[in-house]
Amino acid sequence: MSNDSIRAIAWRDDALVLLDQRYLPDKEIDFVCESLNDVIDAIKLMVVRGAPAIGVTAAFGVVLAAKACYQQHGEQWKHVIASDLKLLAAARPTAVNLAWAIEQMNMLIKDCGTNNPHATLLQKAQSMLTEDIQINQKMGDLGAELIDSGSQVITHCNTGSLATAGYGTALGVIRSAFKAGKIEHVYADETRPWLQGSRLTAWELVKDGIPVSLIVDSASAHLMKQGNISWVIVGSDRIAANGDIANKIGTYAAAISARYHHVKFMVVAPTSTIDMNLESGDLIPIEQRGQDELMQLNGQYFAAKGSQAWNPVFDVTPAKLIDAIVTEKGVIMQPNAAKMINLMNG
Amino acid sequence: MSNDSIRAIAWRDDALVLLDQRYLPDKEIDFVCESLNDVIDAIKLMVVRGAPAIGVTAAFGVVLAAKACYQQHGEQWKHVIASDLKLLAAARPTAVNLAWAIEQMNMLIKDCGTNNPHATLLQKAQSMLTEDIQINQKMGDLGAELIDSGSQVITHCNTGSLATAGYGTALGVIRSAFKAGKIEHVYADETRPWLQGSRLTAWELVKDGIPVSLIVDSASAHLMKQGNISWVIVGSDRIAANGDIANKIGTYAAAISARYHHVKFMVVAPTSTIDMNLESGDLIPIEQRGQDELMQLNGQYFAAKGSQAWNPVFDVTPAKLIDAIVTEKGVIMQPNAAKMINLMNG
Repeated sequence: MSNDSIRAIAWRDDALVLLDQRYLPDKEIDFVCESLNDVIDAIKLMVVRGAPAIGVTAAFGVVLAAKACYQQHGEQWKHVIASDLKLLAAARPTAVNLAWAIEQMNMLIKDCGTNNPHATLLQKAQSMLTEDIQINQKMGDLGAELIDSGSQVITHCNTGSLATAGYGTALGVIRSAFKAGKIEHVYADETRPWLQGSRLTAWELVKDGIPVSLIVDSASAHLMKQGNISWVIVGSDRIAANGDIANKIGTYAAAISARYHHVKFMVVAPTSTIDMNLESGDLIPIEQRGQDELMQLNGQYFAAKGSQAWNPVFDVTPAKLIDAIVTEKGVIMQPNAAKMINLMNG
Repeated sequence: MSNDSIRAIAWRDDALVLLDQRYLPDKEIDFVCESLNDVIDAIKLMVVRGAPAIGVTAAFGVVLAAKACYQQHGEQWKHVIASDLKLLAAARPTAVNLAWAIEQMNMLIKDCGTNNPHATLLQKAQSMLTEDIQINQKMGDLGAELIDSGSQVITHCNTGSLATAGYGTALGVIRSAFKAGKIEHVYADETRPWLQGSRLTAWELVKDGIPVSLIVDSASAHLMKQGNISWVIVGSDRIAANGDIANKIGTYAAAISARYHHVKFMVVAPTSTIDMNLESGDLIPIEQRGQDELMQLNGQYFAAKGSQAWNPVFDVTPAKLIDAIVTEKGVIMQPNAAKMINLMNG
């Protein structure tokens, strides 16, 4: 049975309290955000990561921004918050859930009067948090239906309770399928350079009693060749209008290997991840992070002095390599632009 | 200009002196082998690694074994050395160069009389070391001929001076092609779990002034998609009679991605790596190493407690994904069983 008691995002005592994922699995330390700047730091520094979790965090960031604007400018608060929202939206470029969540809050701001908006905005952020968990449970059920009994699956990065408000996207499907007795074993890519797999996914699955083996990212092709893997299941940070998806670096390589071995490939993401403004995945901005992420671990440098690193932290998997996109609005098999429009209008 | 002054294997003062690769690039520490057991430890613990380097090391291991046998058993030395050779051959399973080098020494042992064999065996081991460097330089020239000017290439693991007696196999081709002005930039896979790429390959290339960027192993597909990579160049630990090759875990995934992107794939290995006794790569024994290699770095554990790891350190790339096998006897394009026989008989 999946207990999934992990909640990494909470509002307590007028502050946003995040479980600081930089210190997991060793230490469970809270990172308390009392201002918009704290929230921007939390997103940039990867205290919180994962597209849906970044979205929910940003919603609370808007609450804190509005609070400060009202305290400083009173009834003029709406005139000054716009620049705050832009700063927040720029914290990380790839995950579109960040922009989506800010836009949700901004629509409500437009409807607000000049009075203190705190209660209204806080209620909205809290309902976005609750809804994200419900959406994940819905996607968990839909995705699990695609999986046959006795399956072994591969997952990449962390898409669980830590990457969302709770339960998870791809890891939510794995939780639901395991609960339904369909999954025998999970192979978790360690997910270089940030090691989300070995640090976070393994931590969540061990807590839930779901059998997990870590592999180096480059071993998944060799594993698929053994013939026992039925699905690769991943999340996404942005889905274009044609069904191309951006996700953690290495997702594209895993999709190519999956197709080569006739292993099916599932993407699990809420519709807030879908960006119908982008025609194809080639237009998705890919974040480049610092070279140090590849060259050291917790301050201990292992790479040769004088070398450099190229560190794009996402890549794009084309729709043609994807067998299923699972959203809370339904499942698309063999995604394409027409099916994406139907889904969004459905 | 490539200076390549690195020599990781040397005979000094009646002992085999290895540059201990576990401490690179931080510290250059010698590991001195005065007995067969020291040599077996060095191979098992990866003080020395890389198929050709393991072969040359084993040859000196036989010298040390014979010395001890003669000291203890005098003229009976040949009767007791056989069990030593078996122990040595079992130190690591995948690289066939180990067995090949022991067999070279064993053939000479059979021709020896009952007198002290030390000088004869030492001379043979030293000539194997010298020949390995010459072979690498020959392969460097042959492989470089296949590369066009202005190329950017990807390499995996370490196949340089540290993996051989000197110069390198795949890295030898990169050295020669760079010297010939053909290579603009090298992307080195960091090569999890042991990080041969960021620790060793980057160290060698920085020393030689060859421009190198590290990437996480899973980023190579994304890099190939940009369209500027002309070759993936790797070594091998064993080549089967049909042209299938075993190499560091992740080689197979890189080969699949290369084919998907129409990037050419080159394997560089001396004929001592070829095992004509194995019909196909499926028969090559794949070494599984300890889980800790994935879960900690220099004793610092980062993986979630209670998780497990699957750690095959080699995989097999089928001949059909290989464009060129470069050996000191010549180059095979699009390898298959018939071409392999021609090469070995040529």
